[in-house]
Amino acid sequence: MPEFIPEDSVGIVTPQHLHFSEPLELKCGKVLPGYNLMIETYGQLNSDHSNAVLICHALTGDHHAAGYHRMEDRKPGWWDVAIGPGKAIDTNRLFVVCLNNLGGCKGSSGPSDTNPVNGLPWGPEFPLITVDDWVETQARLADRLGIQQWAAVVGGSLGGMQTLQWAITYPDRLKHAVAIATAPKLSAQNIAFNEVARQAIMSDEAFHDGHYQAKGTIPKKGLMLARMVGHITYLSDDAMRQKFGRELRAGNLNFDFSAEFQVESYLRYQGENFSSRFDANSYLLMTKALDYFDPAAAYNDSLAAALSSTAAKFMVMSFTTDWRFSPERSREIVDALLAAGKDVSYLEIDAPQGHDAFLMDIPRYTEGLKIYMDRVAREAGC
Amino acid sequence: MPEFIPEDSVGIVTPQHLHFSEPLELKCGKVLPGYNLMIETYGQLNSDHSNAVLICHALTGDHHAAGYHRMEDRKPGWWDVAIGPGKAIDTNRLFVVCLNNLGGCKGSSGPSDTNPVNGLPWGPEFPLITVDDWVETQARLADRLGIQQWAAVVGGSLGGMQTLQWAITYPDRLKHAVAIATAPKLSAQNIAFNEVARQAIMSDEAFHDGHYQAKGTIPKKGLMLARMVGHITYLSDDAMRQKFGRELRAGNLNFDFSAEFQVESYLRYQGENFSSRFDANSYLLMTKALDYFDPAAAYNDSLAAALSSTAAKFMVMSFTTDWRFSPERSREIVDALLAAGKDVSYLEIDAPQGHDAFLMDIPRYTEGLKIYMDRVAREAGC
Repeated sequence: MPEFIPEDSVGIVTPQHLHFSEPLELKCGKVLPGYNLMIETYGQLNSDHSNAVLICHALTGDHHAAGYHRMEDRKPGWWDVAIGPGKAIDTNRLFVVCLNNLGGCKGSSGPSDTNPVNGLPWGPEFPLITVDDWVETQARLADRLGIQQWAAVVGGSLGGMQTLQWAITYPDRLKHAVAIATAPKLSAQNIAFNEVARQAIMSDEAFHDGHYQAKGTIPKKGLMLARMVGHITYLSDDAMRQKFGRELRAGNLNFDFSAEFQVESYLRYQGENFSSRFDANSYLLMTKALDYFDPAAAYNDSLAAALSSTAAKFMVMSFTTDWRFSPERSREIVDALLAAGKDVSYLEIDAPQGHDAFLMDIPRYTEGLKIYMDRVAREAGC
Repeated sequence: MPEFIPEDSVGIVTPQHLHFSEPLELKCGKVLPGYNLMIETYGQLNSDHSNAVLICHALTGDHHAAGYHRMEDRKPGWWDVAIGPGKAIDTNRLFVVCLNNLGGCKGSSGPSDTNPVNGLPWGPEFPLITVDDWVETQARLADRLGIQQWAAVVGGSLGGMQTLQWAITYPDRLKHAVAIATAPKLSAQNIAFNEVARQAIMSDEAFHDGHYQAKGTIPKKGLMLARMVGHITYLSDDAMRQKFGRELRAGNLNFDFSAEFQVESYLRYQGENFSSRFDANSYLLMTKALDYFDPAAAYNDSLAAALSSTAAKFMVMSFTTDWRFSPERSREIVDALLAAGKDVSYLEIDAPQGHDAFLMDIPRYTEGLKIYMDRVAREAGC
């Protein structure tokens, strides 16, 4: 709970709920007759609408990227370290837009929402959404806000995939693409971890083939396991060693199956916590969006070819101990952009935190991002 | 199904069921009044009993390390690539002993066994077993077989931990310790993966607090998830890429939650298969034995001090892409042995298969092992 709002915070923010009535044809072949998006904006759109930055969220993120909803909030938005007056993404100069992606569970249309056709929760009937579909909804959001071209589209992890897809689908609608801790497609190991998470959720007796809402229950155990697996992949081996080592909660071995190592109780806590705040069907959907992302597939597996039509300038950033999307995966993107003759900067940040580093206040990272975003702001004329 | 037994196979083997009636005081403080061990032996014990080699199994291994039980067997024992006439562990020269560890589920006393006190399945009442306890039971097995000193104790992964513990607990009872793809203790990340596996099993409704046998059921889904998680850690990212890549089973995306990538169906198959052949309580017990292993803990966290009283010669082997127990972890053992002034050889094998490599027929590995085991045999006078 902040006793006062820090000076470099965007302060108290109010999400907006927008309805889009034009039908949306999805990659899966289905059509959504209409949908809602929950968004937040920070800063002011300038008179020539040139200073807008889109923030794309990762697997379990949402529209609340910065600031506080209420004075009583214990924590600010998920990327408050990077967004605010004077921060890397400087809201004194830039107009920042963040949304809960379609299919999410924080106010945008998604499986936990009501299907307008029958008044029942969508549940598993909500169609699978791809990164392409998200870019389409985000383009319509830009239209709604009067933004013809983003000064930059910025995202980490699954958010970084959206920035790449933006540059491919709408070359003229963004000046810069900032892709952080991401990959041009998932590896078999990445898919395998997602599949374990999905199986954990789907094999929970409370899942009821996705109709748990109608049954008045949630697949809590499955969600908990999914989050535990995910969490291991977000942290580096080193980070875990530094954070927990082999410390015992009670100081000595119990010889039973209670959580006795610190790392066990930490994971159980993270899992428990998550299971009460995230929708299982949304989680399944988000992991599939990750699995499916593969822009090179339509170009004979040539990422350079997929990126050949892009017009944005690129900034790619990675973290040394990230083993979910390692620096090697970022370099694949950089190499493909170079092969396609594009303007690309690359920053590899030495950080022990693993994949989670992209959400943290690491000086070399936030300073590197600030220098780049200052360029974005200058080019936007502000 | 082998149409004929290969010449370099130990052939048809028959396990032996041995009863030990002397009470066993366990590390956890409990006492087992007596217990059974299921063992197999290959080759002949020589007249001065100097050529015996103990093979220690890993997490889900058992006594059936080589050869076939029946002509109809589809596969030989789990380490048949290394054990047999003329193979690395040459049964023409060495007498090889392998057992199902106490607490296992393949014939030795364990949770799925009957508690002689009440005639009911032990289930969760079976005490937790540590690596120390296993060494104790293996020492008694040596006594029973008339083996005062092993020519070598050999093991991979959790089996490697047993070889280290043997060298520490009974310095004079083994001439050589061969520790393959192992670690001196689990990292926080290793423990975290084990904890996910345990939570998957324990949160399965069919687990019934471990009393599933009495209820006539098994926690199939939990075991399946546990195995899926385990399997990801046994394979390297590279191995998965080579084996599955992003290949789709049907050639195109389904936009549903069926297993559509090859890696998904592979993991589901592995999980399913495992869940019908391994006991859940045994799996929990084995993961705890892994978590607890930490011989340096009693020596102020100095592994060199823990190993200072050892008298064996050591061979340590690791595999480049093993990220469960990486070469770095093997080098910790080597460095500690060097610091303690011990005789140690080290072989790091360039292999793409990850942790699973230790079970495979990789020429540099099996040849390296053969050269070392030839030395073992020579020193044993055969």
